Amino acid sequence: MEPGAGPVSAVLPAGGSGERLGGATPKQFCALQGRPLVSYAVRAMERINWISDIIVVVSPENIKTMKTIIEKYGHKRVMVVEGGITRHRSIFNGLKIFAEKEFSSHLLQKPEVVIIHDAVRPFVEEDILSKVVMAAKEHGAAGAIRPLVSTVIAPAADGCLDHSLERARYRASEMPQAFLFDTIYKAYQQCTDYDLDYGTECLHLALKYCKTNAKLVEGTADLWKVTYKRDLYAAESIIKDNLSQEVCVITDAKETVAQVGFLLSESLKSQIKVETVSVSESKNDSHLQNILSGQCCSFVCVNDKKWAIEETQQLVDMLEKSDVSLLYPVVLILVHLDISENNSFSIGVEELTSIKKFARETKKKNILVYGLLIQYK
Amino acid sequence: MEPGAGPVSAVLPAGGSGERLGGATPKQFCALQGRPLVSYAVRAMERINWISDIIVVVSPENIKTMKTIIEKYGHKRVMVVEGGITRHRSIFNGLKIFAEKEFSSHLLQKPEVVIIHDAVRPFVEEDILSKVVMAAKEHGAAGAIRPLVSTVIAPAADGCLDHSLERARYRASEMPQAFLFDTIYKAYQQCTDYDLDYGTECLHLALKYCKTNAKLVEGTADLWKVTYKRDLYAAESIIKDNLSQEVCVITDAKETVAQVGFLLSESLKSQIKVETVSVSESKNDSHLQNILSGQCCSFVCVNDKKWAIEETQQLVDMLEKSDVSLLYPVVLILVHLDISENNSFSIGVEELTSIKKFARETKKKNILVYGLLIQYK
Repeated sequence: MEPGAGPVSAVLPAGGSGERLGGATPKQFCALQGRPLVSYAVRAMERINWISDIIVVVSPENIKTMKTIIEKYGHKRVMVVEGGITRHRSIFNGLKIFAEKEFSSHLLQKPEVVIIHDAVRPFVEEDILSKVVMAAKEHGAAGAIRPLVSTVIAPAADGCLDHSLERARYRASEMPQAFLFDTIYKAYQQCTDYDLDYGTECLHLALKYCKTNAKLVEGTADLWKVTYKRDLYAAESIIKDNLSQEVCVITDAKETVAQVGFLLSESLKSQIKVETVSVSESKNDSHLQNILSGQCCSFVCVNDKKWAIEETQQLVDMLEKSDVSLLYPVVLILVHLDISENNSFSIGVEELTSIKKFARETKKKNILVYGLLIQYK
Repeated sequence: MEPGAGPVSAVLPAGGSGERLGGATPKQFCALQGRPLVSYAVRAMERINWISDIIVVVSPENIKTMKTIIEKYGHKRVMVVEGGITRHRSIFNGLKIFAEKEFSSHLLQKPEVVIIHDAVRPFVEEDILSKVVMAAKEHGAAGAIRPLVSTVIAPAADGCLDHSLERARYRASEMPQAFLFDTIYKAYQQCTDYDLDYGTECLHLALKYCKTNAKLVEGTADLWKVTYKRDLYAAESIIKDNLSQEVCVITDAKETVAQVGFLLSESLKSQIKVETVSVSESKNDSHLQNILSGQCCSFVCVNDKKWAIEETQQLVDMLEKSDVSLLYPVVLILVHLDISENNSFSIGVEELTSIKKFARETKKKNILVYGLLIQYK
């Protein structure tokens, strides 16, 4: 859902030291299924085509790491900016890239609306991004909120309870937030050193310095911030879950083969989302291409030609073009049905060598090819 | 750390419906590594010997399930009480068991201090329990707190930001909490239907009805409440981590065997906590018994007698007595060193049958026995 006309960009503060995590690596650089958390957050922005530029703000010592991540995972429309010593100073630096010529040789197009989102909230969906952007256009500022999980209390100076807040009257302020660029930039220009050093809430700055009461938008539970080690465990499990949610069964158009594909998908579909594609002789199958450029990472390819490497190569090429394998390990299982009358349970050394060599090559591209030989008479 | 004289009991509200989890099973009954979450929370209380009675309050439809869990996992000093339709009504029911004869045929000894803890916070440590109990003795009430992860905001009636709270001035109120029994019971007796139906915070009731300002105690990050599906993922990963944190290497006193045990523990100890025990001929080894009654779930037992089932049986008996295997799967790897001159790589069918039979039997008791034969000359 495109939120309307003017340009939209995003700033992702990723400068935190991760002290609450209790590890040496800041949490945004911790690997989940081999890929750093920040890369998931960047990907979540990048896949949305109405976001023009993505500014990742990192502390000076992590600039090189961040640039390596961008290159390795093929991230596009992303710029790395050096952060300040606090969250607000980092966000301000990120915003300057659109407004101050002296700050950068790459002055980017100033967006109408800027999204601010944490690098440690990897599961943000287009729907909530679109909602906060639209609300920001109307109200000047907007932010995602969630119900409070715990009661909030105010301690007195003696370490005893002063009072507790009525939970239903308050909300947790989460990310993403969005602002008219001019509003939030003006707020940052006006705010005090105290704000920059001790503040944490952008909505507060917009209210205090621009009299802008942000629109609050109910977000989903998956907006939560990876803060503690347990959150890394949770994020990793969610990613694994997502990876194994869909399988695509590809067959050629021959009846026997298509029938096996049909039976396979019937038996799988109680457990997992299954797409079935029967590929005809013509190679430009748009349905297949749609699936390949989607989120699916698991493919079962059924045919009756022994290890049809040429056709598999075409599939691998299409997968590579779709960028899925840049982000996730893609599994491709080649099932060869041997239905000839006089089949013998054997595979030639030459064939075996060539399929193994092929799998070794694709593995470098994060595509894991497995072969399965099924004989029936 | 025992918190002092008077009796202490605990009430665990476990009546939630788990609607935030988005599944059919309330989260306290979801299985982590095969065991329901509530059983971990009960265990966390039960292992503390200065807690006399543990009252688990569940909704009427789950009483049978809860009783089955108590029996299956051998929980002790636990009583199941029927909850009300809200959290406060459930806690009140739990407290009545100590005070109202007509409420129960089993009137339990009234504690000086009562701990209130959620069934969905499985990782509570003795240290924080002891701290809140001691603080409750002194102040009448006490509760664990944590820093806020997100800024808390107050929405206005139009769905826009009214104001945001300064994060540093507030805390999240967590569990465990502890109260002088008379204080919290009096508060519940006095509180209104509105409090019972819409309130959530026990510290608030103690303040409102007994003018008791609870002492706030900084808790650790692991006090968090399992609320969403991601929290179940996190809890499961933490449990797996804990299970694999320690291994115990047991050898007999013979020099060759003890030396292999020493080398094994040396090579393991960079990755995992290792205890090494050399068992002498006398069977009442107190060091070994201490370890067996601790948290360790992984044992490597090295000897030079082929599959010494009799000795293994003694070890299995000790493990069973320690209750570890009631709670977690225990892994016992029997390593047989064959250092005889003329060894041959073989094992008789009879020996193999008997060890397999033995392993099948212990598996029923949640003790997984594996055998490993190592020959060297």
